Amino acid sequence: MKLQTTYESNNYPIIIKHNALDHLHQYIKQYKDIVLIVDGTIDKEWNETLNFITSEYDAHKLVIPSGESTKSLDFYGQSIETLLSNKLTRNTCIIAVGGGATGDFSGFLAATLLRGVDFIQVPTTILAHDSSVGGKVGINSKHGKNLIGAFYRPKAVIYDLNFLSTLPYTEVLSGYAEVYKHALLNNDNDVNEIETHFTNKKTLASLNEIEYYIYKGIETKLNLIVQDEKESHVRKFLNLGHTFGHAVEYTFKIPHGHAVMIGIIFQFIVANKVLNQNFDIAHYINYLKSLDYPLNIIESFEFDPLYELMLKDKKNDQLGVQMVLLDGIGHPVVKHVGKSTLLESFKDLQTYFKK
Amino acid sequence: MKLQTTYESNNYPIIIKHNALDHLHQYIKQYKDIVLIVDGTIDKEWNETLNFITSEYDAHKLVIPSGESTKSLDFYGQSIETLLSNKLTRNTCIIAVGGGATGDFSGFLAATLLRGVDFIQVPTTILAHDSSVGGKVGINSKHGKNLIGAFYRPKAVIYDLNFLSTLPYTEVLSGYAEVYKHALLNNDNDVNEIETHFTNKKTLASLNEIEYYIYKGIETKLNLIVQDEKESHVRKFLNLGHTFGHAVEYTFKIPHGHAVMIGIIFQFIVANKVLNQNFDIAHYINYLKSLDYPLNIIESFEFDPLYELMLKDKKNDQLGVQMVLLDGIGHPVVKHVGKSTLLESFKDLQTYFKK
Repeated sequence: MKLQTTYESNNYPIIIKHNALDHLHQYIKQYKDIVLIVDGTIDKEWNETLNFITSEYDAHKLVIPSGESTKSLDFYGQSIETLLSNKLTRNTCIIAVGGGATGDFSGFLAATLLRGVDFIQVPTTILAHDSSVGGKVGINSKHGKNLIGAFYRPKAVIYDLNFLSTLPYTEVLSGYAEVYKHALLNNDNDVNEIETHFTNKKTLASLNEIEYYIYKGIETKLNLIVQDEKESHVRKFLNLGHTFGHAVEYTFKIPHGHAVMIGIIFQFIVANKVLNQNFDIAHYINYLKSLDYPLNIIESFEFDPLYELMLKDKKNDQLGVQMVLLDGIGHPVVKHVGKSTLLESFKDLQTYFKK
Repeated sequence: MKLQTTYESNNYPIIIKHNALDHLHQYIKQYKDIVLIVDGTIDKEWNETLNFITSEYDAHKLVIPSGESTKSLDFYGQSIETLLSNKLTRNTCIIAVGGGATGDFSGFLAATLLRGVDFIQVPTTILAHDSSVGGKVGINSKHGKNLIGAFYRPKAVIYDLNFLSTLPYTEVLSGYAEVYKHALLNNDNDVNEIETHFTNKKTLASLNEIEYYIYKGIETKLNLIVQDEKESHVRKFLNLGHTFGHAVEYTFKIPHGHAVMIGIIFQFIVANKVLNQNFDIAHYINYLKSLDYPLNIIESFEFDPLYELMLKDKKNDQLGVQMVLLDGIGHPVVKHVGKSTLLESFKDLQTYFKK
């Protein structure tokens, strides 16, 4: 399966399939210098598969730690100096193989090396179906996630589904949150379809037909980002579940998608109050339980510190917390939500989990 | 005087005049957050003039060291964390007041803060008439100048000529090199005109009508950069004098423009050999002497280390050193030049200075 962005210029293809790596050749053969940046865990598990990049293209290889720890200013500085020690020319392509953190980090290196060189995303997780598309790259500040970065488009996204075979279930759950979010942004049909297809842990763990849902998710995202690359209006909808989700992720250090799913539930509760919606909260919670999302952590939440973090969200303005809410499935809106409503909704959320 | 870029979109004005700072208001009034980044020397000399930015706009102020030392990875990291500690929103404008290093550094901060915020260049030197226009921003690597950076356009360039009144003559000479270079890229007329207007140290130090020549210089540069922002073809012409010049600057730590002027002379010698030109080398050397450029340093040059540095120029390709040469005044070309020609030209250059 293949998608293509539809910007006015500088478009890129997104290839989604098993053995998609076979397509890499056509995108890299014209470069003088190739740099392979690969997540440490992936490097161990998929060394043989990736070997051709160093052997056939004489690529410089940089193995980086898994996860967000790689996205620090110190490690960025150290890595860009290492790359520059190889006397790279502007005719360089960086290939990023890993999850979202690898893509964010490598993309920021590409955006700033010699005032910008080309790069290709090779996502290896379900979660990265989201982060590898859209051109957001960056690293973390001590004041928050992704506060240092750029909008910088890849030359191609090569999504080889083979990588998903070694993904632990906790990572499947994390990625599925963004897939499910994309369905919620679309329409009732898509939500029914995905809930009927992935009914429980067993069916989700099988990843049966996951490529179809990944394809649909990316398609939904593309629709929004080509209209609004720099996130001044409709791209904000992609933050569904992220206002509360980011605060939870930051506080409890749980996987991104686990926190986003909790953020989505919270958003349903707020939408019922603010937009007079009638979302069946119990239905969504039961669905997440059947997929085995670890939700018991909600019991230990405290409102005040989470509210403080929501206030720091970089999408807020001077009027306070802004959230994406569903005014019906498929109808996202951006709304200011006052503290009292957030507190009430928070208490409601906890009633489902208090013993 | 006012110029305007002519890209397809995201154009910006360049305002060149005394008291141009009065125009700043109209460009910054709509922002929620203002950040003033100012060169330490300028901050001392022009504190009262700049005061309105902090008092009227409640700007966050960051005073940075003068010169290239500010453009390090460490100082970049420290500065972006300081800015982020102020909980800036994306609705931020950074105002960079200083010479080329201040603009490069502040522009790179703007390009990477929260994935990019707006910035305005307020150049305070003649040299910065060049660097403040064109959107090249960046910092230095331990492997070379400006190797970490981006192409990122300012929202406006506010060139207040008042600042030039405190510029030391050595800095006037440094800036004049780029003004003179722009005339060489234009035509015979412009070169005759500027040589007749600024005949010696006294006339140049007076800065009489300098705004006209700055205007012409920027106009020349704009012509090239709107055709080729990312420097894949005609923008390279702006590197006239820079291949040898950068090597000299790096080795002897002399001001940028002093080195570029020497690079321009060297280029005339090479053009006479490679392109069968008949440039009157003695005329150019005498002109620079009459302006009081410190050229005696040329006597102590050694070829091998300078050649090694020329080989590292980021515009080279696998075929070796590429130089911009004048195939007649106003007719720049990019040419590969072999080691033996460079060595011969180097020896010729030194014959003018050996005692």
